[in-house]
Amino acid sequence: MNNSPIGVFDSGIGGLTVVKEIRKVLPGEDIIYLGDTARLPYGTKSTESIIQFSRENTKFLIDRGVKYIVIACYSSTSVALEILQKEIEIPIIGVIKPGVKKALELTRNKRIGVIGTTLTIHSGAYERAFQEFSSDVEVIGRACPLFVPLVEEGFTQHRATELIAREYLEPLQKDNIDTLLLGCTHYPLLLKIIKKIMGPINYVDASKELSKELAKSLAEKNLLNPSGKGNITVYLTDLSINFKEIAERFLGAPLKNYFRASLSSNKEKGGV
Amino acid sequence: MNNSPIGVFDSGIGGLTVVKEIRKVLPGEDIIYLGDTARLPYGTKSTESIIQFSRENTKFLIDRGVKYIVIACYSSTSVALEILQKEIEIPIIGVIKPGVKKALELTRNKRIGVIGTTLTIHSGAYERAFQEFSSDVEVIGRACPLFVPLVEEGFTQHRATELIAREYLEPLQKDNIDTLLLGCTHYPLLLKIIKKIMGPINYVDASKELSKELAKSLAEKNLLNPSGKGNITVYLTDLSINFKEIAERFLGAPLKNYFRASLSSNKEKGGV
Repeated sequence: MNNSPIGVFDSGIGGLTVVKEIRKVLPGEDIIYLGDTARLPYGTKSTESIIQFSRENTKFLIDRGVKYIVIACYSSTSVALEILQKEIEIPIIGVIKPGVKKALELTRNKRIGVIGTTLTIHSGAYERAFQEFSSDVEVIGRACPLFVPLVEEGFTQHRATELIAREYLEPLQKDNIDTLLLGCTHYPLLLKIIKKIMGPINYVDASKELSKELAKSLAEKNLLNPSGKGNITVYLTDLSINFKEIAERFLGAPLKNYFRASLSSNKEKGGV
Repeated sequence: MNNSPIGVFDSGIGGLTVVKEIRKVLPGEDIIYLGDTARLPYGTKSTESIIQFSRENTKFLIDRGVKYIVIACYSSTSVALEILQKEIEIPIIGVIKPGVKKALELTRNKRIGVIGTTLTIHSGAYERAFQEFSSDVEVIGRACPLFVPLVEEGFTQHRATELIAREYLEPLQKDNIDTLLLGCTHYPLLLKIIKKIMGPINYVDASKELSKELAKSLAEKNLLNPSGKGNITVYLTDLSINFKEIAERFLGAPLKNYFRASLSSNKEKGGV
């Protein structure tokens, strides 16, 4: 038993879709969420920057007494999870491996598609994660960079989104995949359009798989808090005009406790 | 005569479309460009953050000896130009007023449309700028937040972009505007699709107007450098995977001298 909160961070508010899934499985746990909205999106930033940002986010959460860290950001998980695992004392989990394990469970023809931001796909993190568990699957990655802005602007049912999705997903159709892994927090909101295009294959929402694995790990480490009230506290490094509306859509619940946070960034950087 | 370079800053590489226009009018001038790619987009950030970022960008350029500052970012111009004009010694120009003056010259029915990012439109900066010069025009603003990612992903001729543009521009058509001001660096790349939808009205590309006004102001202040070689030096606060390809598309020329820059940011921020 451990009454401390779980810490979750993401580059923005998209990770609240992960919080939504965690709450379904672990309704009593308190959660502190940090969205680095001042520096989003991470997907277009350099590896070096993402590692630095991820360290700062982790420190912020540890300073607030969390018992477990969840990286809800695919770009951060791709490049920073393994580094952070070596650097910090408390357990930390990312969004990549749980989805990979589920996809391997589901596939029959061993042809798995992965969609994500440009950085997630180009980093090769998914290929490496699949290879760790299985040597005989073919992984076909496809970057879908417009999906995030389309979701954030509420174009989740729009004909334009379908046209763009058809273009992004066409190579995956040709490759005859039987399982598609949604490798970005925002993508579950496009599942209807994606299913319309890709048809009756297996779909893996990594947030759901992460939540199940987190619950299992908390139980194993005797860190569960079954009598908690499930309070959600949200810190954002910047508050944009319409963040609350989008955040509540992702969380699927009203956003009550939210604060603007400052991170001590860039201090180690010198001149040019 | 003054051989010092002109300093141009933007939240990203979109401002290179402004540099392209400046070079047409002032081919001999050396230009130092700063793109704050580590913190883009500004359009979704808070006013407070944009002012802070704009101050840091200005300092960076002044430290490199520029004789004139051009704010190529609409969000920065909207909220920070007037503040910076009071704080710095050298002349500074933004992308809003030159386009406003041109639109007022062109309109006959006094109904002018302005398109831009969410922050540019919601800031009311354009309404204020129009009111400064004319009291009897109706200004209809329309945020087009998906245009920037669509341009950056190269969807400038795509059917999906046209569908989204039709949705964004429909209220402007209904309002019977006779002049449309493109209030974002990226939008001139969508002019073909915009013209297809809006038909034979007047179009104002603020970058072109800014360049003409800059040339006039340099001449008036005796700051021209007619014998210069027109060197372009580009500093970016982050280098993403495909920035060079996009940057060269915006600049319309090969990118030769580019460097990664660090800004001394967030030092004044305390804890939470």
